[in-house]
Amino acid sequence: MKLVVFGAAGRMGRMLVTTIAETEGAVLHGATDRAGAEALGKDAGLLAGVGESGVIITDDVAKALDGADAVIDFSAPAATVALAGLAAERGVAHIIGTTGLSEADLAALADAAKRNVVVRSGNMSLGVNLLAALVRQAASALGEDFDIEVLEMHHRHKVDAPSGTALLLGEAAAEGRGITLGQRSVRVRDGHTGPRTSGDIGFATLRGGSVVGDHSVIYAGPQERITLSHHAEDRGIFARGAVRAALWTRGQAAGLYSMADVLGVG
Amino acid sequence: MKLVVFGAAGRMGRMLVTTIAETEGAVLHGATDRAGAEALGKDAGLLAGVGESGVIITDDVAKALDGADAVIDFSAPAATVALAGLAAERGVAHIIGTTGLSEADLAALADAAKRNVVVRSGNMSLGVNLLAALVRQAASALGEDFDIEVLEMHHRHKVDAPSGTALLLGEAAAEGRGITLGQRSVRVRDGHTGPRTSGDIGFATLRGGSVVGDHSVIYAGPQERITLSHHAEDRGIFARGAVRAALWTRGQAAGLYSMADVLGVG
Amino acid sequence: MKLVVFGAAGRMGRMLVTTIAETEGAVLHGATDRAGAEALGKDAGLLAGVGESGVIITDDVAKALDGADAVIDFSAPAATVALAGLAAERGVAHIIGTTGLSEADLAALADAAKRNVVVRSGNMSLGVNLLAALVRQAASALGEDFDIEVLEMHHRHKVDAPSGTALLLGEAAAEGRGITLGQRSVRVRDGHTGPRTSGDIGFATLRGGSVVGDHSVIYAGPQERITLSHHAEDRGIFARGAVRAALWTRGQAAGLYSMADVLGVG
Amino acid sequence: MKLVVFGAAGRMGRMLVTTIAETEGAVLHGATDRAGAEALGKDAGLLAGVGESGVIITDDVAKALDGADAVIDFSAPAATVALAGLAAERGVAHIIGTTGLSEADLAALADAAKRNVVVRSGNMSLGVNLLAALVRQAASALGEDFDIEVLEMHHRHKVDAPSGTALLLGEAAAEGRGITLGQRSVRVRDGHTGPRTSGDIGFATLRGGSVVGDHSVIYAGPQERITLSHHAEDRGIFARGAVRAALWTRGQAAGLYSMADVLGVG
Repeated sequence: MKLVVFGAAGRMGRMLVTTIAETEGAVLHGATDRAGAEALGKDAGLLAGVGESGVIITDDVAKALDGADAVIDFSAPAATVALAGLAAERGVAHIIGTTGLSEADLAALADAAKRNVVVRSGNMSLGVNLLAALVRQAASALGEDFDIEVLEMHHRHKVDAPSGTALLLGEAAAEGRGITLGQRSVRVRDGHTGPRTSGDIGFATLRGGSVVGDHSVIYAGPQERITLSHHAEDRGIFARGAVRAALWTRGQAAGLYSMADVLGVG
Repeated sequence: MKLVVFGAAGRMGRMLVTTIAETEGAVLHGATDRAGAEALGKDAGLLAGVGESGVIITDDVAKALDGADAVIDFSAPAATVALAGLAAERGVAHIIGTTGLSEADLAALADAAKRNVVVRSGNMSLGVNLLAALVRQAASALGEDFDIEVLEMHHRHKVDAPSGTALLLGEAAAEGRGITLGQRSVRVRDGHTGPRTSGDIGFATLRGGSVVGDHSVIYAGPQERITLSHHAEDRGIFARGAVRAALWTRGQAAGLYSMADVLGVG
Repeated sequence: MKLVVFGAAGRMGRMLVTTIAETEGAVLHGATDRAGAEALGKDAGLLAGVGESGVIITDDVAKALDGADAVIDFSAPAATVALAGLAAERGVAHIIGTTGLSEADLAALADAAKRNVVVRSGNMSLGVNLLAALVRQAASALGEDFDIEVLEMHHRHKVDAPSGTALLLGEAAAEGRGITLGQRSVRVRDGHTGPRTSGDIGFATLRGGSVVGDHSVIYAGPQERITLSHHAEDRGIFARGAVRAALWTRGQAAGLYSMADVLGVG
Repeated sequence: MKLVVFGAAGRMGRMLVTTIAETEGAVLHGATDRAGAEALGKDAGLLAGVGESGVIITDDVAKALDGADAVIDFSAPAATVALAGLAAERGVAHIIGTTGLSEADLAALADAAKRNVVVRSGNMSLGVNLLAALVRQAASALGEDFDIEVLEMHHRHKVDAPSGTALLLGEAAAEGRGITLGQRSVRVRDGHTGPRTSGDIGFATLRGGSVVGDHSVIYAGPQERITLSHHAEDRGIFARGAVRAALWTRGQAAGLYSMADVLGVG
């Protein structure tokens, strides 16, 4: 598969170039950066520290897409929407890890997905997406006598709680149960709380050190407990997931896909 | 649902009587014990310590089944095969937690299942069966760059390793990957082992204290790890799973089912 | 060691009788219950389900103490203070698991401890007391670049958060660091919290199922993490700790001791 | 404190230069590499990627030590022994993370320690050394009714089992119990093992993915369990421990010290 990295000079772009170099079946075909960027004209592989790739970073996106199979994009909403049109015209599958997309942006992507293979997720990690699918199923299979709790730990610099991924997992659990998370989540406990309300989904947050991201969903039932956990060692897992999604697009029909589709755990 | 406990005076039988008393929608309808047993003629609820139930323990199995919806059976192979016929004749669903069944026994049960609803599992716990289903799916979704390891801990008195449940989980992982566990399992590591062989499924065993049973399946991939765990507090979880299976049989077509069917996680 | 169980007919009293029966070096010497109680005149062993002990439950405390080495007491403040005097007069070591003691009660116990061996703790479990000692040391050895977090999980019926034991562990950590817990504890996190403040001690609470009690203290530093955990399977651990304390009193000088002294981890 | 990095151009050397740059109270004073090395004449900070330090890498060790407070050395036995003499002559504290030292080498270091402050450990991580101290104490405080198990997990490329650190922790537990590890360790379990022998120390090994190093020591007793764990995110923890040891040497009397001394958890 011939892959293009959109925004190849940034931190995530360089991780993508590195991951492509390490992945069998993936070849770096093009690399872009925004007009005026310092990296234009440089070799994308050298910039990423994985040796000369022969692919020069360009701001001519159309040319970079020419002859490619898929383009990977962790950029910003406006750039992603513009790229969606260009990629769809050329039949280049579009892998989107961009966050902060509005309803209008999502509609534009859905439109492009009528003609093109588009994969989008708010968290491109294989592990987290697989976990979410398992969480949904477990919540659906187990009754309300299994209490659901979501625990997460992140580094000391994180400024919000719970993490977006903890909420994503809580949503998956709520979906499995057929409830609305917002109406049943318990985000903190302190002092006299009274007994736990059956059917609630609880959250607990730990902060400290340099923890990249740990998440657990606990199903605590009568005399037994199931725990489904994800431990991230490095942010490079997002690049790996995106490259795997790109390889998966070969032979797929046009449509808007999620990482659950890529993993076959829908 | 009107339930019969087959072997109501034993440890598991008394747990079943207790669980039925605690379960909404379940009613104790009959209770049996073998001919000549000391418990015959006693009230099953009193014997289990949950108060008078009005159900007297009898050795007349046919009579106990009369008018019942399901019978729960954690007995021995010969008794289970005999009960399968009696239950099928009367259309009483048969929930089987008996272990040590031979191929011939299983064939007899399959035969009864042509006319009756039969649920059988080597481990009746909801949690372990759900875990096995999730383990299979995760193994199927993740490639060989995720190494699979099965860890278990049991009390100091356990005499074999790995536990039957650890092997059941290993089988589920192997099935998800489309391999044969026996050919790819690594049961111990000591001294100079060399690097891990891709595709193997490893086992590790801990023993100590009064641990009822902890199991984890770990998928260790590049820069991330998923862990799926089950923690048992008490052997009563087998009784709960069996009662849940009995309630599930209402309205099912004849057939041989597993706990995965009961949980809807096939 | 000849032991007396004070309040032998209650739930904890029966656990104590059972534990003494199972402990080498411990012999049940006396058993009391309050005047007018139904259990008076019954055999303490039979009542606890461990077979006839030959020790009849009495409301004559002085007589029960006669010739004994130690008395174990999980009663109420007033009864404990009264017993402290009786035990001190007779030189019978006093093991106290009673909670809710006032400053005045504690002063009375300290007074008895001038003449008698008294061991008192708010949590008699060996494991929790050992953990508290280790937590203190780790907090003292590691600098503020290791962030301390206390995590606990209890069953769905628990009505307050964090647990008393979580606070006890937080106090141990604060003591190790030479700070006051009340001034540096962060009991909940939700929404925009900003980065973690160095030196704080965080708490997180999980509730669900039938969990007896799990506690972890996490030291999250730069690129490494230490976690010290305790998992309780059964409330019987409090009885075991008390009996161990009773055995330990042999040959000790008069004084007020803690479980840390018993464990030798002060 | 003015610190010298011995072997500043290697992977560990660059980590040390980086750590010193990030550590308050530590200043890079000198940097050496072996005669003929390519890095000679280069700026140690630039080489490590932390900006110009003004310290040029030299092969003149005596000159590099001149005016320094401590030298950090993760080299090879012969070089370490030679450095021990030079450092002792100049009163420069010697921090040694070198492994594979013979009895004769250790004797030479002990000799240098008569005149100099020498800190040596087979594992310089703060966390592992603290854990070892806690493991020893817990083993000493708890009786043989607490079964001790050591669990470790490392990446798929590790070729031996159990890890050196797992054995170090097992030794600490054995020492706490007053037994010899070699006589009481159970390194694997498979098939019919019989019940656990009281007093043994068990090991279990997991391998997979890119796990840097996880270690747990479990004390499984009657109805309760204590677990003491260490999780390494990055090999940089060895550099951090060494720099902390160097800062600790200020004002110490001559002698041979361990990381337990540095942490004050002897």
